[in-house]
Amino acid sequence: MEFTASQIASFINGRIIGDDQTIITGVAPIESAEEGHLSFVAQARFVDYLRDAKCAVIIVSEKLLTDIPYKPTIIAVEDAYLSFQILMNLYQEMQGRKSGIEDGAVFHESATIGENVYIGAFTCVSEKVKIGAGSQIYPQVFIGKNVKIGKNCVLYSGVRVYDYCVIGDNCIVHSNTVIGSDGFGFQPTKDGYQKIPQLGNVILEDNVEIGSNCSIDRGTLGSTIIGQGTKIDNLIQIAHNVKIGKHNVIAAQAGIAGSTVIGDWNQIGGQAGIVGHINIGNQVKIQGQSGVNSSAKDGEILYGSPAINAGEYRRNYVHFRNFTDIVKRINNLEKNSKDNTNE
Amino acid sequence: MEFTASQIASFINGRIIGDDQTIITGVAPIESAEEGHLSFVAQARFVDYLRDAKCAVIIVSEKLLTDIPYKPTIIAVEDAYLSFQILMNLYQEMQGRKSGIEDGAVFHESATIGENVYIGAFTCVSEKVKIGAGSQIYPQVFIGKNVKIGKNCVLYSGVRVYDYCVIGDNCIVHSNTVIGSDGFGFQPTKDGYQKIPQLGNVILEDNVEIGSNCSIDRGTLGSTIIGQGTKIDNLIQIAHNVKIGKHNVIAAQAGIAGSTVIGDWNQIGGQAGIVGHINIGNQVKIQGQSGVNSSAKDGEILYGSPAINAGEYRRNYVHFRNFTDIVKRINNLEKNSKDNTNE
Amino acid sequence: MEFTASQIASFINGRIIGDDQTIITGVAPIESAEEGHLSFVAQARFVDYLRDAKCAVIIVSEKLLTDIPYKPTIIAVEDAYLSFQILMNLYQEMQGRKSGIEDGAVFHESATIGENVYIGAFTCVSEKVKIGAGSQIYPQVFIGKNVKIGKNCVLYSGVRVYDYCVIGDNCIVHSNTVIGSDGFGFQPTKDGYQKIPQLGNVILEDNVEIGSNCSIDRGTLGSTIIGQGTKIDNLIQIAHNVKIGKHNVIAAQAGIAGSTVIGDWNQIGGQAGIVGHINIGNQVKIQGQSGVNSSAKDGEILYGSPAINAGEYRRNYVHFRNFTDIVKRINNLEKNSKDNTNE
Repeated sequence: MEFTASQIASFINGRIIGDDQTIITGVAPIESAEEGHLSFVAQARFVDYLRDAKCAVIIVSEKLLTDIPYKPTIIAVEDAYLSFQILMNLYQEMQGRKSGIEDGAVFHESATIGENVYIGAFTCVSEKVKIGAGSQIYPQVFIGKNVKIGKNCVLYSGVRVYDYCVIGDNCIVHSNTVIGSDGFGFQPTKDGYQKIPQLGNVILEDNVEIGSNCSIDRGTLGSTIIGQGTKIDNLIQIAHNVKIGKHNVIAAQAGIAGSTVIGDWNQIGGQAGIVGHINIGNQVKIQGQSGVNSSAKDGEILYGSPAINAGEYRRNYVHFRNFTDIVKRINNLEKNSKDNTNE
Repeated sequence: MEFTASQIASFINGRIIGDDQTIITGVAPIESAEEGHLSFVAQARFVDYLRDAKCAVIIVSEKLLTDIPYKPTIIAVEDAYLSFQILMNLYQEMQGRKSGIEDGAVFHESATIGENVYIGAFTCVSEKVKIGAGSQIYPQVFIGKNVKIGKNCVLYSGVRVYDYCVIGDNCIVHSNTVIGSDGFGFQPTKDGYQKIPQLGNVILEDNVEIGSNCSIDRGTLGSTIIGQGTKIDNLIQIAHNVKIGKHNVIAAQAGIAGSTVIGDWNQIGGQAGIVGHINIGNQVKIQGQSGVNSSAKDGEILYGSPAINAGEYRRNYVHFRNFTDIVKRINNLEKNSKDNTNE
Repeated sequence: MEFTASQIASFINGRIIGDDQTIITGVAPIESAEEGHLSFVAQARFVDYLRDAKCAVIIVSEKLLTDIPYKPTIIAVEDAYLSFQILMNLYQEMQGRKSGIEDGAVFHESATIGENVYIGAFTCVSEKVKIGAGSQIYPQVFIGKNVKIGKNCVLYSGVRVYDYCVIGDNCIVHSNTVIGSDGFGFQPTKDGYQKIPQLGNVILEDNVEIGSNCSIDRGTLGSTIIGQGTKIDNLIQIAHNVKIGKHNVIAAQAGIAGSTVIGDWNQIGGQAGIVGHINIGNQVKIQGQSGVNSSAKDGEILYGSPAINAGEYRRNYVHFRNFTDIVKRINNLEKNSKDNTNE
C-alpha cells in the first residue's frame, strides 16, 4: 500500500511543509528511516534528525519546528506521537480481516459462529464451540469442546484452548500459548504421585491480551481467571485457580503459583515469581526476578527473593556490595578492641 | 451428564441426609458452588458453608457433621476428600475415550498401533512409529520417525516428539511441549560456533506427566531420561543428557542444565535452576528461584542463588534485611573505638 | 544404516587394530556403549573402558593406546573427539533431506521456493513468501505473508513465523518457537491499557540457531535483530527491538527486555534477565540467574540480581553465608565497647 503525504496529513489534520505528493512506501523509527519511509519526531532529543533524514515524510510536533529548511516533507501536528499512533492503528485496520472457514479446517457440526468469523486451515473447532462475530482464528489452532470465544478476538497460529474454557470479547492470544492445560496437582502416596483430576476451566475476561508460549492452567475445580484488560507478555506461567483482576501488566517469564489472588492495576516484572495461596492487592509493583512469598498490600513496591520493600532491598544491596570492606572494618574493630583489652 | 444424589452415594458408599433424588449438573469448590452443583467439605474450616450453601449436594466427612439441619443434600462418608477424588476420577473415565484415525491425519504405512488408539486430525505419524493400545494422540501432534509410545498415553494438541524418542506407558504430555529437540551443543572456533550433532534421544519412563510448553532436549549421544512417575509442570527446560530418577516433582519454569543426574523423590521449586554436570541425591527439596551450582546429598533443603542450606539462607537473609541497621552499629563502634583511642 | 569398521576408518584416515569387518549398528557414549555400537575415547580418564567395553568399535586418540590387547576393534586417529565429530556430521548428512511439497500443505500461489525445498504436511505458506534452495520446512509450520527464508534452513514442526519476518541462510529453528509475535507495548489510560501497534519485524541473520519454545517479538517499528552465528537455547524471551550481534550464546530461559543492544561473542547464562534500553558490549559473561540492570562494558563478568562484578559477588556472598557469625562478632564488639565505656 502506498500513500502520499497529502493523504496522511488529511487523516491527522496536519499542516504540510514541502511536497504534498511525496510517496510513502514504508514506516520506520527516525534513527533508521530510509528512502520512502514515513517517520515521526515527538521529542526534542530527536530534532537533529529533521535536517538530514533520508526518509520521505516526517510527522513533527509543531513546537519542535524551527526556521531551517527541511529535506523531507514535514507534516506538522500538535502531538506527533499521538498522531503517529492514530495512523498506525488506521494502517492495521486497513490490512483487512479475513472471513470464512478455510479449506482443511475441521469444524464440528454442533459448533456455531457469528458473522465475519475467520477459521484458518488445519484449525480444529470441536463440539459445541461458540465463536462470536468478527473473531479471527488463525491456522493450526485447537479449540476443545464447549469452548466459548467472544467477539472480535484474534487467536494466532498454534494456540491451544482446552475443553470448556471461556474467552471474552476483544481478546488477543499469540502463537503457541496454551489455555486450560491441567493444573499441577498430585497426591503423594508411597507408590508415587496420584493425579488429582483437573475439572475446572480458564476464563479470560474482555480485552485480555496474552503473548506467545504462555501456559494458563485450568482450575482443579472452578476457574482460573484473567480479569478484564489485563495484558500478559510471553512465556508466562499462570497456575490453577489463580484469580487475576483488571488492568494488570505482567512481563515475560513471570510465574504465578496456584490459587493466588491478584487485584487490579498491578505491574509484575519479568521473571518474577509469586508463590501460591497469597493475595496481591492493587497498584502493587513487583520488580523483575523478585520472589514474592507473602501477601502484598495496595501500592507496595517489592524487590528481592524473597521480596521485600524495594527501597529497603536496594539500600541493603548497597551494603552487600561493600560486604568485603564491612568485614575488614569489623576485623579492625576486633583488633583494636583486643589491643585495648591487652593494654 | 446428570446424576442423582443417590447414584453418587452408591459410588462411594455414602449415607444420604436429605432428598436422595436431588439432581447434580456440575461440580465446584464449596466457596463458589452454585445451584445444581456437587461439592465437598473435608476440613473443619469449611463447615460454616454447610448450612447456607446454594449447591445441590455436599459430600461431608462424617466427623464434621452436627445436628443442625442442612439445606443441601448431604452425603456422609469417612473421608470426604478421598471420596471426592474417587468420584472425579470416575467422572473423567466416563467422559469416554476416542479411537480410530481421524480424517486428515497423516499416518505412515510402516507405523503400527495397538487397539483403541486415537489419532486426531492433522497429526503426523512418521515412519516406523509404534503406538501402544489405548493411547490418545490429539490433533496437530508431530511424531517423528522410529518413535515408540507405550500404552494408555495422552499426547495433547501440538506436542512434538522428535525422531527416535521413547515414551513409556501411561504418560501424559500437555500441549506444545517439545520432546527431543537438539541439545545446546556448540564448539567455539574463531569463525563462530560449530554445531555438535545431537544424535541421542529422550526416554520418558512409565507414568510420567509433563505440562505444557516444556522443552526436553535429546542427548548428544545416549539419552535424556525422565524416570518413572516423575511429574513435570509447565515451561520447564530439561537439557541434553540429564538423567532424572523416579517420583520427582518439578514446578513450573525450572531448568536443569546438561548431564546433571537427579535421584528419586526430589521436589524442585518453580523457576529454580540447576547447573550442568552435578548430582542431586534423593528427597532433596530445592526452593523456588534457587540456583543450585554444586551437588546435593540426600535430604538436603536448599535455597538461594547460589543455593545453600535453606535454614541458613533464611537466617542470613534476616540479617540482610537489617543490613542498614547493622552498618549503623558498625559506624557507632568505630566512632566509640576512635573516641577510646583518642582519650 | 550399517557400516563396517573399515568403512568408518576410511572416512577419518584411521588405523585399524582388530577385525576391520566388524559391523556397527549404532552410536553411544563409552560409558553406556553396548554390542554393535561405535564409540570414542579422547581423554585419559576414559582409557579403562577400552579393555572391557562391550561395544563393537572404538575410535581412540593415538596417544592413549597401550600394548594391552583390546576386545573391541580400535580405530586409532590423532584426535578421537574431532574424528568422531566429523563422522557424526557425515552421518547426519547421510540421513537424507526430503524435498517437495507434501500433500496437505497449504502453499499460496504467490509464494516462491528454490530447488530442493521440503514443505511438510499441514504447513501453511502464505502470500508472497520466499524460501531459498534446500530449506526444510517440517509439518505444521506457519509462515505468514511476505516472510523471507534463506537457503538451507531447517524449521521444525510447530514453528510460527509472523508476517514480514526475515530469516537468513543456514538457520535452524526448533519446534514451537514463535518469531515475530507482537512486542509488549501498551499505553496506560484511565480506562485501561491501549495497545500500541507492533508494525516492525524480526530479522535472523545467517547461521542463527534457535531452540524450542522461544518467543522472539517483532519490533514496534523497525526490526528485532539476531546477528549472524548467534545461538539461542530453549524457552528464551527476546523482546521488541532488541538488537543482538554476532556469535553470542544464550542459555535456556534467559530473557532480554525491549530495545536492549548486545554486541558480539557474549555468553548469557540460563535464566538470566537483562532489562530494556541498555547496552551490553562484547565478550561479556553473564552468569545464570543474573539480573542485569545497567549497561556492561567489553569483557565484564557479571553475577547477581542486580548483577555486579562476578568476583565481587562471590566474595560478598561468602560473607552473606557467614552473616550470622558476623552479627555475633558485632554483638561481642558492642558488649566489649560497653564494658570499656563502663570501666
